[in-house]
Amino acid sequence: MFEELKFSLSLGSDNHSGVHPRVMEALQAANRGHAHAYGMDELCQLATVEFKRAFGPEVEAQYVFTGTAANVLSMATQVRSFEAVICSEQAHLHLDECGAPEKFLGTKLWPLPSRDGKIAPEQCESLLQRMGDQHFSQPKCVSLTLPSEFGVCYSLDELREWRRFTKERNLMLHLDGARLANAAAFLDVSLEDLTRGVGADVVSLGGSKNGLMGAEAVLLFTPAAKQAFKFYRKQAMQLSSKTRFLAAQFYAYLKDDLWRQIAEHSTGLARDLEERLRVNHPDFKIALPVQSNALFVHVPKTLLKDLRERFFFYIWDSDTQLCRWMISWDWTAEHNQKLLTAITEVKTCSTLK
Amino acid sequence: MFEELKFSLSLGSDNHSGVHPRVMEALQAANRGHAHAYGMDELCQLATVEFKRAFGPEVEAQYVFTGTAANVLSMATQVRSFEAVICSEQAHLHLDECGAPEKFLGTKLWPLPSRDGKIAPEQCESLLQRMGDQHFSQPKCVSLTLPSEFGVCYSLDELREWRRFTKERNLMLHLDGARLANAAAFLDVSLEDLTRGVGADVVSLGGSKNGLMGAEAVLLFTPAAKQAFKFYRKQAMQLSSKTRFLAAQFYAYLKDDLWRQIAEHSTGLARDLEERLRVNHPDFKIALPVQSNALFVHVPKTLLKDLRERFFFYIWDSDTQLCRWMISWDWTAEHNQKLLTAITEVKTCSTLK
Amino acid sequence: MFEELKFSLSLGSDNHSGVHPRVMEALQAANRGHAHAYGMDELCQLATVEFKRAFGPEVEAQYVFTGTAANVLSMATQVRSFEAVICSEQAHLHLDECGAPEKFLGTKLWPLPSRDGKIAPEQCESLLQRMGDQHFSQPKCVSLTLPSEFGVCYSLDELREWRRFTKERNLMLHLDGARLANAAAFLDVSLEDLTRGVGADVVSLGGSKNGLMGAEAVLLFTPAAKQAFKFYRKQAMQLSSKTRFLAAQFYAYLKDDLWRQIAEHSTGLARDLEERLRVNHPDFKIALPVQSNALFVHVPKTLLKDLRERFFFYIWDSDTQLCRWMISWDWTAEHNQKLLTAITEVKTCSTLK
Amino acid sequence: MFEELKFSLSLGSDNHSGVHPRVMEALQAANRGHAHAYGMDELCQLATVEFKRAFGPEVEAQYVFTGTAANVLSMATQVRSFEAVICSEQAHLHLDECGAPEKFLGTKLWPLPSRDGKIAPEQCESLLQRMGDQHFSQPKCVSLTLPSEFGVCYSLDELREWRRFTKERNLMLHLDGARLANAAAFLDVSLEDLTRGVGADVVSLGGSKNGLMGAEAVLLFTPAAKQAFKFYRKQAMQLSSKTRFLAAQFYAYLKDDLWRQIAEHSTGLARDLEERLRVNHPDFKIALPVQSNALFVHVPKTLLKDLRERFFFYIWDSDTQLCRWMISWDWTAEHNQKLLTAITEVKTCSTLK
Repeated sequence: MFEELKFSLSLGSDNHSGVHPRVMEALQAANRGHAHAYGMDELCQLATVEFKRAFGPEVEAQYVFTGTAANVLSMATQVRSFEAVICSEQAHLHLDECGAPEKFLGTKLWPLPSRDGKIAPEQCESLLQRMGDQHFSQPKCVSLTLPSEFGVCYSLDELREWRRFTKERNLMLHLDGARLANAAAFLDVSLEDLTRGVGADVVSLGGSKNGLMGAEAVLLFTPAAKQAFKFYRKQAMQLSSKTRFLAAQFYAYLKDDLWRQIAEHSTGLARDLEERLRVNHPDFKIALPVQSNALFVHVPKTLLKDLRERFFFYIWDSDTQLCRWMISWDWTAEHNQKLLTAITEVKTCSTLK
Repeated sequence: MFEELKFSLSLGSDNHSGVHPRVMEALQAANRGHAHAYGMDELCQLATVEFKRAFGPEVEAQYVFTGTAANVLSMATQVRSFEAVICSEQAHLHLDECGAPEKFLGTKLWPLPSRDGKIAPEQCESLLQRMGDQHFSQPKCVSLTLPSEFGVCYSLDELREWRRFTKERNLMLHLDGARLANAAAFLDVSLEDLTRGVGADVVSLGGSKNGLMGAEAVLLFTPAAKQAFKFYRKQAMQLSSKTRFLAAQFYAYLKDDLWRQIAEHSTGLARDLEERLRVNHPDFKIALPVQSNALFVHVPKTLLKDLRERFFFYIWDSDTQLCRWMISWDWTAEHNQKLLTAITEVKTCSTLK
Repeated sequence: MFEELKFSLSLGSDNHSGVHPRVMEALQAANRGHAHAYGMDELCQLATVEFKRAFGPEVEAQYVFTGTAANVLSMATQVRSFEAVICSEQAHLHLDECGAPEKFLGTKLWPLPSRDGKIAPEQCESLLQRMGDQHFSQPKCVSLTLPSEFGVCYSLDELREWRRFTKERNLMLHLDGARLANAAAFLDVSLEDLTRGVGADVVSLGGSKNGLMGAEAVLLFTPAAKQAFKFYRKQAMQLSSKTRFLAAQFYAYLKDDLWRQIAEHSTGLARDLEERLRVNHPDFKIALPVQSNALFVHVPKTLLKDLRERFFFYIWDSDTQLCRWMISWDWTAEHNQKLLTAITEVKTCSTLK
Repeated sequence: MFEELKFSLSLGSDNHSGVHPRVMEALQAANRGHAHAYGMDELCQLATVEFKRAFGPEVEAQYVFTGTAANVLSMATQVRSFEAVICSEQAHLHLDECGAPEKFLGTKLWPLPSRDGKIAPEQCESLLQRMGDQHFSQPKCVSLTLPSEFGVCYSLDELREWRRFTKERNLMLHLDGARLANAAAFLDVSLEDLTRGVGADVVSLGGSKNGLMGAEAVLLFTPAAKQAFKFYRKQAMQLSSKTRFLAAQFYAYLKDDLWRQIAEHSTGLARDLEERLRVNHPDFKIALPVQSNALFVHVPKTLLKDLRERFFFYIWDSDTQLCRWMISWDWTAEHNQKLLTAITEVKTCSTLK
């Protein structure tokens, strides 16, 4: 079936890749007989064990379908409509969710200036000066993306500083971890250290960009975060019926730390690529530190079109030819080599023209 | 993997069953290489061909994750917040979606009295008398469930009467077809005849209850229905990234009319069971005509507990022991026999007590 | 100015009348120099003293512009979007607010059958059986209208039964008191006894229908009700700037119990009219007990058109010629006489035709 | 009544002042007999005549209670939830409405950098590059404040440029005219020229800050803007019952161009004050051109506290002692003199210390 389809390699996004073999195996193994729906099946229990192993015993993991839903529902139990969410002006929450936070929560987003997708506590000060003023959307939540939309990671020190600040100011701390595993691999810490450990109240844990077929989780750490979550999820149209097939995916992903294996692999290849570009193609300027499976690179103008015909990728800023290369779980060292070879080839072609 | 799990047979719901082998096969076949996300992949194109074959060339099919989302998004492009949706007081939309329509659309639902989940045009008259009155939520949409939550089908004549009425009154017509295939099989008509053919503007087409892993579709037939749908879906957090895995499921479901095969099978078994109950167990009173894969039956009080221990099912009304038996795609004639044997056994036990 | 305008007498609604002289006097007295806006003026403080005198020291009174806003904001601090509000199917909240509760709160209304606008605790039982079920909008609030939309009053015993029931079931109790003063006058109790005294968490206190120019108040009695109210009000676009002119109206209305004087006057005239109809015009069938300033009466078919030309009123049910006659604060005994004379006249005319 | 209250002079806001005598006179004249509610009264018709005289025959004027409501409802008929509103980062819409736009419309605001509250078309370009991208809130409306929150006016040329740009890009043009009359007075144009004339689709026309007791209007110029407005207003809880008292206020305000008289008076006094400060108190640095009834001035640090004790005003930026002095309709030349005298006095006191 589908033999006629091309399915060519892409640097466009880590959701261009398919399903990791061990995840697919779990989906097939889950496909036996009947099971209760809506999270009452035994597979959900098995997955819960893995979640608690990875994120600590306090975690409550709840499935949703998309990263946008994970982000919005992370806030639903605690952020009231007159409150506001502080994030980076580069945040997926702000730029790429078509107003879902505003629509479902009724809240305002306060985006802070950022070049690399990271923000710092001192940037919040002016917003916090109007606390108590009924005319002003009241900041209630800080949302950090880890790794950021530009692939860089907050250091543990920076995260601890955010923990201190948010606790002091009575703000809820949310992590958008669409690629959280990559950050944990880069920082060489456990998932628990990187979430509960840095004081996060709620975390959006991505799956689809890490080899799952389509599953995301919301990790709730505090009683306030957990309270009534299920009702908000249902009202947000995110309650799956056949939950065993979501649970199976995360079970496989967490079991035996497959997540780390995948993350180390893709981040490793991204960093390898970065190094080889620096050495062999210094005209490909690396724009930002490579701290996950994303490479932001300024591609020379004359090569851009030809190279994109060989490997699809997105242009982030057409003025500076800033491009994003996302390394998926199924990318290999051979693909790196192939890409470098392609670069050499388009250079040659370009010279010949 | 998961060998320890029981996965026992259930009459609880048709979402207690797993994934049809041909759907699972399609998911595996779709798992090759890379593909564009968000509906831009080639598999979506293949599935589109199947949708147009089944529902006519005008249809635009869009994927969502849940039946609740299909229902709510069906209305999003046309129902404004001050407008209202007329439905049966038994409608899933009203009773089982935790206020998702009210939340996302901001609209009021006007539930009409119904015993079997069906409603009739003349029931709407009084609501339509305040059209133009700014104090009153303005009826804009009629939502019919087909087959109804009680498993019965509107006849084609009844549907044509609704078409006439809604066109005349300038109301949008929505069909909640979580089990639409079963209605088409029972009425022995094509899917196109049962949707576009009866003047539906939008249809929620269920997949998860018919052997899919987790996928629903919204079928848009008119320009007004189609307009801006994608934006509402994204804002409703229902835009899948790896769409090829939703498309693959519906492709398999529609290809070679697998949908009809499944629906005829489950509805056939439900009707067979009904007949054998009538003959052999007249104390099991069939409450409603069996016109799909649902059997509503009053189980004798003394047998209820024992029987539920052998086959799980839901009690719809504990006063009258009205129970719902849902026949899934993977139910077999042997299972029917097994269930009838179990009835005989619990009767014997009951006598012995 | 405006000498050319007719401003004829109306039985249409108690908001067809103008402003009570003492209220107008207060508005003029308030119109001196400058005052802080948004509730920070001294007049608000004076009005607060009157509110506490009338409703007890725990009350927090907040101004809004409309009865719809009072009702919706009464619930905003405590009813979450996945929760639901139980009311009568005749409730203004349900029938006459164009979906404002659904829009602002995102919640479902559960209307209960009612002939006279009153409901009873036992009617709620079936709705409360699905508490905890994530698919079902969770009942959280009971809203009673006092006097009801049909002008009848819950007895103190009935209200106490509601208090017991709502406390027991952990439901919030809201009173829609658009004409609360009339109920207090009829039941001959204090405003405090009729609100805090019967366990109401929040009360919508009407002003516009009782001689104010345009002002309503939300009375918050519990900490949960009060918390963050101001932010919800501002977000609901109901924060007045020149609050002194709202405060002045309520100051005049509560001062020296003007409210009771007005309510006894209009209710008294309604009851006088009822009695004289019974005696002199038994063909005018009184449909419901007259327990406030509303008279529901079946007007003989042959007289309806002629009578409405002399005194405007609304027809509630055209099949039975059920009509509503609302007695405003400025209605007088002479007007009653005039109306009765008019009835006699239209009868004569009718006979002559 | 209220003789004990102080009501001292304030520069805090133009809503600190009371009601203009001619407006109060109209309110009293309107207080005769009975009138239909909800806009069906004769006074509404009289006011409509005045609105059409001032804004042209195409205008439909609708009353609301607050400036926030005027702004949000201006957009309700045309901006869908997945769309976005472009405004200045200083916009009242963005900073001072507690998220009302996000809550009621469900949309995102895109604030553009601005020092004086004005924005320019070229600032929108980058936002418009993602039109059609389903992940991105789609810009639909541009909202300009006139005069801006910093008291400066767009020139007619600037406004025409905005008209050209918005029509070209298919964007709706909204004017927040909380103090529109002041802009018209400063620019010396008619109200029609400044609204319909510059291509505005909808305008928020302020009343409360210009001598009304509490009334704002939404001016709808296009069929798209007018369509269904009344339903959105009711659902937004902004439908007044006793509309004659809103109509009376605007009738008086527009009749014989009282609005211009008020605006010329207050703007004239603000500019007179500016000039005298420049000449006599150059240490009071005027921060922005005075083009309406607002004066933004850096008050010398040593004088700030003393001066505020004599005349209340708000500090806009405590670092630079930027203060806002709002001149109300009832401010006089004597008050200007009094203020200048006070400045001299606090300087003397300061020197003596």
